[in-house]
Amino acid sequence: MKQSKLLIPTLREVPNNAEARNLQLLLRAGFIRQVSGGVYAYLPLAMRVLKKMNAIIEEEFEKIGAVEIKMPTLLPLSLLEKTGLTSSDEKAYNFKNRTGKNFILGSTYEELISELIGDEVSSYKRLPLTLFQIETKYRNDKRSRFGLLRSYEFIMSDAYSFHATEKSLDEMYRAYQKAFSRIFERLGVKVKSLLGDSQIDEQTDALEYMALSESGDKVGCFSTGSDYAADLQAATSAFTSKKSHESLKEIEKVTFDQQKNLEEAAVALDIPLQKTIKTQLYIADDQPILILVRADQKVNELKVKKYLQVQRLNAADETKVETYFKSAPTYLGPIGVSIDCPIYADLQVQDLANALTGANEENTYLQNINPERDLQVEYYADFRLVKEGDVSPDNSGTLELKKGVEVGRMVKVGTYFSERLKTSVLDENGQHIPVQMGYYELGISRLLATVAEQNSDQEGINWPAEVAPFDLHIVQTNMEDETQTKLTNTVEKMMIEAGYQVLVDDRLERGGVKFADADLIGCPVRITVGNQADEGTVSIKFKQTQATIEVKQEELISTLDILLNSES
Amino acid sequence: MKQSKLLIPTLREVPNNAEARNLQLLLRAGFIRQVSGGVYAYLPLAMRVLKKMNAIIEEEFEKIGAVEIKMPTLLPLSLLEKTGLTSSDEKAYNFKNRTGKNFILGSTYEELISELIGDEVSSYKRLPLTLFQIETKYRNDKRSRFGLLRSYEFIMSDAYSFHATEKSLDEMYRAYQKAFSRIFERLGVKVKSLLGDSQIDEQTDALEYMALSESGDKVGCFSTGSDYAADLQAATSAFTSKKSHESLKEIEKVTFDQQKNLEEAAVALDIPLQKTIKTQLYIADDQPILILVRADQKVNELKVKKYLQVQRLNAADETKVETYFKSAPTYLGPIGVSIDCPIYADLQVQDLANALTGANEENTYLQNINPERDLQVEYYADFRLVKEGDVSPDNSGTLELKKGVEVGRMVKVGTYFSERLKTSVLDENGQHIPVQMGYYELGISRLLATVAEQNSDQEGINWPAEVAPFDLHIVQTNMEDETQTKLTNTVEKMMIEAGYQVLVDDRLERGGVKFADADLIGCPVRITVGNQADEGTVSIKFKQTQATIEVKQEELISTLDILLNSES
Repeated sequence: MKQSKLLIPTLREVPNNAEARNLQLLLRAGFIRQVSGGVYAYLPLAMRVLKKMNAIIEEEFEKIGAVEIKMPTLLPLSLLEKTGLTSSDEKAYNFKNRTGKNFILGSTYEELISELIGDEVSSYKRLPLTLFQIETKYRNDKRSRFGLLRSYEFIMSDAYSFHATEKSLDEMYRAYQKAFSRIFERLGVKVKSLLGDSQIDEQTDALEYMALSESGDKVGCFSTGSDYAADLQAATSAFTSKKSHESLKEIEKVTFDQQKNLEEAAVALDIPLQKTIKTQLYIADDQPILILVRADQKVNELKVKKYLQVQRLNAADETKVETYFKSAPTYLGPIGVSIDCPIYADLQVQDLANALTGANEENTYLQNINPERDLQVEYYADFRLVKEGDVSPDNSGTLELKKGVEVGRMVKVGTYFSERLKTSVLDENGQHIPVQMGYYELGISRLLATVAEQNSDQEGINWPAEVAPFDLHIVQTNMEDETQTKLTNTVEKMMIEAGYQVLVDDRLERGGVKFADADLIGCPVRITVGNQADEGTVSIKFKQTQATIEVKQEELISTLDILLNSES
Repeated sequence: MKQSKLLIPTLREVPNNAEARNLQLLLRAGFIRQVSGGVYAYLPLAMRVLKKMNAIIEEEFEKIGAVEIKMPTLLPLSLLEKTGLTSSDEKAYNFKNRTGKNFILGSTYEELISELIGDEVSSYKRLPLTLFQIETKYRNDKRSRFGLLRSYEFIMSDAYSFHATEKSLDEMYRAYQKAFSRIFERLGVKVKSLLGDSQIDEQTDALEYMALSESGDKVGCFSTGSDYAADLQAATSAFTSKKSHESLKEIEKVTFDQQKNLEEAAVALDIPLQKTIKTQLYIADDQPILILVRADQKVNELKVKKYLQVQRLNAADETKVETYFKSAPTYLGPIGVSIDCPIYADLQVQDLANALTGANEENTYLQNINPERDLQVEYYADFRLVKEGDVSPDNSGTLELKKGVEVGRMVKVGTYFSERLKTSVLDENGQHIPVQMGYYELGISRLLATVAEQNSDQEGINWPAEVAPFDLHIVQTNMEDETQTKLTNTVEKMMIEAGYQVLVDDRLERGGVKFADADLIGCPVRITVGNQADEGTVSIKFKQTQATIEVKQEELISTLDILLNSES
């Protein structure tokens, strides 16, 4: 294909406001353009990569029996309400059409496909069945960031499997794991699989696939001593109870002249943060509750939510705290709570002796709190977010925290949706059984960004062979040289006949401009038709290794065959 | 592929509320399901057809140098406002995101792509350039109808070309016409090309592609005596002035005892409708105007809009008419108009003598109106909608009106958008020139419906070879017969090796059920593995011709090769 027919607006400089490396690479190489914050257009080169990525996904999914469908973008709100979405959900684009019907822009399809299966499949004999689509999805985020990594609209492949038995679901879940591995390998991305958060309950298996990146908005926790790897929200750490042997002192009230939060009060009183109790008010569904952790820790709200089995958990704002406690959030404490407000505390709190906590009064704290003696705690459990250096839950090594991009995820959903949407089939005995479901997602625009980022150098992108927009980039250095033009045409024809996808830079530009663009764009091989054209010689440059050789026209195909095969 | 792995929910009966034939066919054959009024899911078989359709379009477009891109669905309202869209436009889905930014769900991309070209292309040397996308689009219609023909969301291919000269645009416009013809032929649909409405002005070339269908919501006008064919809105008819030789009578006022509209008054007074003047009030941009046509004709608002070169033309509602005329719309007339309200009349009105019209008083009409004597008409022009039987504008034959589906359209847009969006390039002399633009659209979900409708019989669909979901449908009549199973597996393997796409009905159903489903689904060839399996004999049925033959396993491939090639 002639470069003059394509729209490839390369940039010499890194554009403003492009902080993420994936964005710098793709903008500079002319693959994408921003239409509006968080909204991008994919230009011809990106489109070619996307289509190759999709073809790989389709091929690998078809190998495990998955079949492609296309579900609509306009989803009736009434359907999503069945599993708890409300029209006030901030993350959904929500609007009425002219007939007054409420629609949500598609971001999640578990409900729609569960209902479809419920309507159309009535017998266990029609199962297992696994369907997928590759579609644009929408997220009404507070802000977009990191280019294609966190945009308002993005391309995603979402696959679903349906089964009559858990065993069948287990098998398919493993099949998708293998398919994902093959896909990542063919895309040329290094991805780690982590224990994920199923967003259903703690027992539900979930895997997250993370590409490590400084632009990532996820955190993975990796053990230094074992294979343990988990998403920050899902991660746990080993906890060994170590009761203090201090003798219990009497509670003392301390009032400061000026405002101090718990951390500042501890410093002033020379108490380590490991001997403090931070008190936080949450509204769990409609019930106010207090969660206690040490001030050197943070609450993992997901753990709380799952432990309490509530639908919604929201940190109370200042107004709400004052309504219940007549105190600012800063001075909140667990002693003398008069309202109906159960207290839940992290396991570490149980071990404390003579700890410091808020007194529910301005600038005032209580010293020498001893939980077993002084607090009315409903349950002690693991409610804290893990931290760098925590002991791995398998007691092998400690946890390292790394930033990454979530490029895929799968959840052994089970009967969560089928029970809520009444998706059942008849089993061998004619009894209704809820359908077992699996969910498997790949972030395609995120993967595009990740492939570019992981396969790049200072000059630009180095596309892996299977997803490169073109296999070969032929650069003619002087368009006015007829010998060069003739040789370029011959080489192009020869290469196309040999089965290569070829991009020919036929622009009236200087060689230097063309080379710089070719380096940005990143096809695996560049063939330069230059000064030696009259001898029938061209030079080949391998983008990734930077290796360059000169070859006679008639040896070009055999040379490429040998070198490309030895590279792979 | 095994049928048990696919979701193909066939229906024995025509479903309720499926009035359009395309909907009946696609629902019964298990290709699509309605998710909500006007919103459909494409199941595995439809997805296979869609992908083949897209591949044909991509291939034919690539032949003429078009390159694929992908533009976003979330379009900033601020961009579309530049060419006149307002946030109150009813046909657009319009909403704010969490940051307060207004978005429109993509339905038109002329603005976005013009701006992209304006930003990224600066020299005539980079032109011509032609880009296309295949994307879901959205229309906030008052109601959805006719299944996939008029739905709230639909799949469309939209192509754009950009040129430095009109000549280059002309060439590309012709290239797209040829590409469209090849695409329709390969899809197996019969499509007529019509003079279209460019929605820009009368001088702008536009073509519409219409598939005749009773479910169509468009009307095409076809000459009985020539090739003239035009969309109803764009159609004109020959007009030969025939002045009446009646002697002019004095105006007479007639008041009825009861309410009568103009048509009823004419009947009561025994005056033919051809001798009446219907008066309609419009607001053209902000100016009230009157349009006069005979009461046996209708106003073509598009002709008025283009003639007056206004952006907006709206029929005045009752309240507005009464504000200006102190009269109900029924009794509106062109005599004694005291406000500033220019009068425009259709050419036919000019020829009238002693005509009847409203008197701007309740139940009252004026007789013997003679336009040249009595009316202050600004301009006489062709303002009427053509009718069945009108003389073709080339004076060859008369016009026949037929319903159809618009499956494609192209417009030689010229500089309309580039002038409004300041999309210019530098020419050879370093001067800024506005870019010439062409627009080329294909309705893909509509074409899917049209292919099914045009290629069907009482039993179901007969997919044309190039877009059939599978080439061959192998039906094993008895799944418990091991000889049949063995032969089925052999035939399947053989056919796949010969390059055919094969669907195998491996369901535990009776032969009759399987045959009926195969007839609904409509693969070009059915191979039945039945009672004669032990002799190695299968039967072949060609869906379209209904021809059936029995063939020995070893002769199957050669027989199919001969018969399929002779069919095409």
